[in-house]
Amino acid sequence: MSEPAVFVAWRAQSQRAVEQALSDWVPPGAPAGLGDAMRYAVLDGGKRLRPLLVLATSEAVAGDATAAMRAACSVELIHAYSLVHDDMPCMDNDVLRRGKPTVHVKFGEAQALLAGDALQALAFELLVPGDASVPLGMAVSLCRLLALSAGADGMAGGQAVDLASVGKALDLPALEAMHRRKTGALLQASVMMGAATGQTSANGVTQLQRFGACLGLAFQVVDDILDVTADSAQLGKTAGKDAASDKPTFVSLMGLEAAQQYADRSLAEAHDALNQSGLNHCDVLHALADWVGRRDC
Amino acid sequence: MSEPAVFVAWRAQSQRAVEQALSDWVPPGAPAGLGDAMRYAVLDGGKRLRPLLVLATSEAVAGDATAAMRAACSVELIHAYSLVHDDMPCMDNDVLRRGKPTVHVKFGEAQALLAGDALQALAFELLVPGDASVPLGMAVSLCRLLALSAGADGMAGGQAVDLASVGKALDLPALEAMHRRKTGALLQASVMMGAATGQTSANGVTQLQRFGACLGLAFQVVDDILDVTADSAQLGKTAGKDAASDKPTFVSLMGLEAAQQYADRSLAEAHDALNQSGLNHCDVLHALADWVGRRDC
Repeated sequence: MSEPAVFVAWRAQSQRAVEQALSDWVPPGAPAGLGDAMRYAVLDGGKRLRPLLVLATSEAVAGDATAAMRAACSVELIHAYSLVHDDMPCMDNDVLRRGKPTVHVKFGEAQALLAGDALQALAFELLVPGDASVPLGMAVSLCRLLALSAGADGMAGGQAVDLASVGKALDLPALEAMHRRKTGALLQASVMMGAATGQTSANGVTQLQRFGACLGLAFQVVDDILDVTADSAQLGKTAGKDAASDKPTFVSLMGLEAAQQYADRSLAEAHDALNQSGLNHCDVLHALADWVGRRDC
Repeated sequence: MSEPAVFVAWRAQSQRAVEQALSDWVPPGAPAGLGDAMRYAVLDGGKRLRPLLVLATSEAVAGDATAAMRAACSVELIHAYSLVHDDMPCMDNDVLRRGKPTVHVKFGEAQALLAGDALQALAFELLVPGDASVPLGMAVSLCRLLALSAGADGMAGGQAVDLASVGKALDLPALEAMHRRKTGALLQASVMMGAATGQTSANGVTQLQRFGACLGLAFQVVDDILDVTADSAQLGKTAGKDAASDKPTFVSLMGLEAAQQYADRSLAEAHDALNQSGLNHCDVLHALADWVGRRDC
């Protein structure tokens, strides 16, 4: 598919701005190599999908741009720390991420563990700057959205379910419930944190929640499809891991063709949620949804 | 030494209240055993020193009791997660904690990693309840103090220095700098979070910061002394670990007697800071300092 040129430009400009902000905020001076490990884990890689969702939603609600950039980086730090820990030998034991050796391969397991821990703390620190640049109520809302999406009922809980599911036959509702936590919670939080930087009607909030949920589902189904259809060089991470580690996926459950149809339906519902949101400036969010749902890496 | 009876009663009552609050807030229902691992890591153990520091300081500044209990539990969750991760094989590889098998021994490494991660997120969640029970400005101050003390320039950074120091001869300033981050930052944050639940003069803030720093130092020196002089049953964790793992300590640096004198001086300076704080209700903080500086386990 061809993407709208205005979106391609917006995306490139936003990715650069996020990269710069992350580079400014992830401390090079952290002691004993910890800063190097943190920066290695965060900088110069990734599509920055979550930050883009924060920024695009913030723009759609005419939100506070300063708070939005902090929120964008905070969700990316949570995502980055989860990858560092997820790649460790006691979890997925992966050696390749974004085309580079994983953090524990490069810096050792102990430093990887600490870097992930420090990145999570930094994510919250970004939301509560020691000045007036983020209004108090907004900072509290952002912290709460982030904490809930990262914690036991969000991402961490989803990873626990994921671990417990290896070798098991999950049905569709169970698989959806796992991914709603594991990847969906932080993607949805990215949308809702963007919304929290501005004002939104009750219906707007409801529809943005639905948009985030459907987009999260489409993201994961496509992820499962690409694990089968793409190669490692294309993905920048080890392909074929799901089957090799006997993990239940949308593809293993319903087959490739039905999984693709399911991704398409989720994507269509995400667009529908935006259309019903009453928000006037959703072009970028629509384009982001297509970018997620139709990606090939 | 004999402790003031009123302090013994305060401590027991406060420990019970903290235990109950933690039990209420650490979710038993977190999926796939994650809640069990989190609760195992947190409940029914520990002296609850950090929560007691929060509560006592809050009382000394006539602070908000609801916010203080949330802050007390949040610092304990950070402390608990750090122990879980610190005990893992890639870090200290310890099997005994508070007289029980460590979390990774009991639940496996992956679950221990996730439980620690989820506890950190929960610590921040506690500070930003979805109701009006913590004033917005206070919640933001508490989040910032917690994030800074837990992160790269606080606890996590101190642990990175600790890892890098194994087998090295640190001098006293370097050893102090490491512990100021590794254990001191969270202890000092406990004091300052208690202070943030109320109003304090500029001098009061300065002296409470000094109190927290000196208490943190005394705590660590005594910790190093007990690692040599106490046995595992007494400590509820493996004794003699520092020497066995060739870690620099105050005892290895200056000898047992000088280390004890150093702990005494730090404790005296902590008392002095309270005396100069201008706060009227510091009896419990004085007693807490003695409890820390003269403990035998």
